[in-house]
Amino acid sequence: MKKLILSLLLLAPLFALAQNQTKPYLNLEDAQRITAAATEKAKAEGWNVVIAILDDGGHLLSLQRMDGVQIGSVEVALAKAKSAVYFKRPTKVFEDAMKAEGGGRIATLPNAVAIEGGLPIFKDGVIVGSIGVSGVTSAQDGIIAAAGIAGY
Amino acid sequence: MKKLILSLLLLAPLFALAQNQTKPYLNLEDAQRITAAATEKAKAEGWNVVIAILDDGGHLLSLQRMDGVQIGSVEVALAKAKSAVYFKRPTKVFEDAMKAEGGGRIATLPNAVAIEGGLPIFKDGVIVGSIGVSGVTSAQDGIIAAAGIAGY
Amino acid sequence: MKKLILSLLLLAPLFALAQNQTKPYLNLEDAQRITAAATEKAKAEGWNVVIAILDDGGHLLSLQRMDGVQIGSVEVALAKAKSAVYFKRPTKVFEDAMKAEGGGRIATLPNAVAIEGGLPIFKDGVIVGSIGVSGVTSAQDGIIAAAGIAGY
Amino acid sequence: MKKLILSLLLLAPLFALAQNQTKPYLNLEDAQRITAAATEKAKAEGWNVVIAILDDGGHLLSLQRMDGVQIGSVEVALAKAKSAVYFKRPTKVFEDAMKAEGGGRIATLPNAVAIEGGLPIFKDGVIVGSIGVSGVTSAQDGIIAAAGIAGY
Repeated sequence: MKKLILSLLLLAPLFALAQNQTKPYLNLEDAQRITAAATEKAKAEGWNVVIAILDDGGHLLSLQRMDGVQIGSVEVALAKAKSAVYFKRPTKVFEDAMKAEGGGRIATLPNAVAIEGGLPIFKDGVIVGSIGVSGVTSAQDGIIAAAGIAGY
Repeated sequence: MKKLILSLLLLAPLFALAQNQTKPYLNLEDAQRITAAATEKAKAEGWNVVIAILDDGGHLLSLQRMDGVQIGSVEVALAKAKSAVYFKRPTKVFEDAMKAEGGGRIATLPNAVAIEGGLPIFKDGVIVGSIGVSGVTSAQDGIIAAAGIAGY
Repeated sequence: MKKLILSLLLLAPLFALAQNQTKPYLNLEDAQRITAAATEKAKAEGWNVVIAILDDGGHLLSLQRMDGVQIGSVEVALAKAKSAVYFKRPTKVFEDAMKAEGGGRIATLPNAVAIEGGLPIFKDGVIVGSIGVSGVTSAQDGIIAAAGIAGY
Repeated sequence: MKKLILSLLLLAPLFALAQNQTKPYLNLEDAQRITAAATEKAKAEGWNVVIAILDDGGHLLSLQRMDGVQIGSVEVALAKAKSAVYFKRPTKVFEDAMKAEGGGRIATLPNAVAIEGGLPIFKDGVIVGSIGVSGVTSAQDGIIAAAGIAGY
C-alpha cells in the first residue's frame, strides 16, 4: 500500500514554480465548458448528477444539480471536489488505497474522500481546481468527471 | 413487531400519493433561467457576483461565480439564499428590522442573514426555493436577485 | 453607511484579468518577510502577538505565536486574516461600518470579522493573501499588520 | 453563598502558587528551533511539507508551509499534531493499531489520526506539545517530524 501511494505521488504533476511567480487559474468560462462536457456525457448515459467545479483554493466556481438527484449528492460532490483539489489527486486513489489495505486509516485524514468521482484539474502541471460528481454509482460518477476534464 | 413495521411501510406510499397533495418545485431549467436573467442584469451594470439558487429544502440547485468576485461571496450568497428560503422572506426584512431596532438580536437567530440580496421564490403562493446574490453592495446584490426572480 | 461601504468597494483594487490567465501568488519566503517586518514592529513596541499569513484561497502559509499571548488569539488572528482575504478588505472596514451603524447586521455575514487587525495583501492589483494579527488592542494589532504589509 | 465563593476565590491563587507545582512548556524559540531542524531534513531530502508545532493545550505555536505543498496538508499537519498531543503518543501508534486490527474502530475516536507524521514532544517526562508534518508520504512525514524532535 505504501508503495502504491508513493507511486501515485511521483506521478502527480509537480508544482511548476513560475519564474515571475504567477500561476494559471480557472475562470467561469472554463468551469462552464467543463460542466457542459460532463453534462453531455451524463445525458448520453441517462445519468442524473450534481457537478461541482472548484478553484485552486477549494472555493466554488459553479455547481449544477440535474433533476431527480438525491439532495445528499450536493455535499458529496462538493466533498469529492474538495478532496481532489486539497490533495492534488483523484478521490479514487484514496478509494483504491483503502480497499487494498482493508482498513480505515484514510478515514482519519481531514478532507479526504475515498469514493471515486473527484478529479483535480491541472494546467501546465499546476493545479487550478477540481471537479466533483455525485448521483449515480461512484464508477459512473468518475466517468462523468473524466468527461468533464476532457472538455477543459 | 416486524409485521407492524411491514404494515406501516405498506401504508406509507399512500400518504405520498394522496390526491392533490403535491407541491410545485423548481427544476434545473428554472434555476438556469433565473440565473440567466440575474446574470444579464449584472453584466448590463458591470457588476460581478455569485448567484446561488436553492430548492425548497435549502439545497443547491445551481451556483455560478463570475470572474474576479471575492471568494467570501460564495458563502455569503449561499447564506443569503438559505436565510430567504428558511424564513420565507427577503433578507432585507431582517436588515430593516435590525436597523430599526438598532441592536443585534437578529444576529442570534440561526440561519438569519440581515444583508440584502436573498429572496424567496414562490409559485402559486407556495415557496419553491430562493436566490442569493453577493459580490457588489448589498443594495446592488438585491437588484440582481430581483432581476433573477423576474426571469422566473 | 451604504455610501461608506460603496466608497470602500470602489477603492478596492480591481481584479486584473491577466491576458494569459495567470495570477501572482505569495510564497513562503514572502510570508516570512512579512512576518519578520511585523515581528520587528511588535518587539519594538513590546507587544506580543500571533501573526498569521494566508494565501489567496485562505489557507495558512505561516503562523507564529509570540510568548505569553492568550491562546484565544490563535483563532482570532486566523479569523481576521480569513475575513481580509475572503472580502478583499481590511477588517477595520467592517469595524467602522458596524460602529457607524450602531447595529449588528455585519455579524450575520459569514466569515466577516469586524475587529481591526486583518489586512488583505495585493500584488499588481490582485489579491494574493492576507495577514491577521491578534494579541494586544485591535488598534495595535492593526499597526503591526500594516508594518507587516510594508515589509512585503 | 456569596461568602463561600469569596473564600474559595481567595484560596484559589494558593493552588497556582503551590511550591514545585509548575510544568515545563514550549516557547516560540523552541518551536522555531524544532521547525528549523525539521526543515533542514526536509530540504536535504527534497521534500516539501507543512510543519506545525502545538503547545500542551493543542494550540498553535508556529506553522510553516513550504512552496508547492498541497493545501490539504495544512489541516492534515494540524490534525496529526493535535492527535499526538491529545493522546500523548505518535500518530503511528494508531496507524499500526488500525493495520493490525484491520478495521475502522479508531476512525470513530475523536481527534485521533492514524497516519504517521505526528509526534508528541516531552520534557523531563512531561508532555509540552507536539509536531505535525504533512506533504510527502506518511513515512517520510514521520522522518521529518523525528528530525524536528531531535533538534529540540
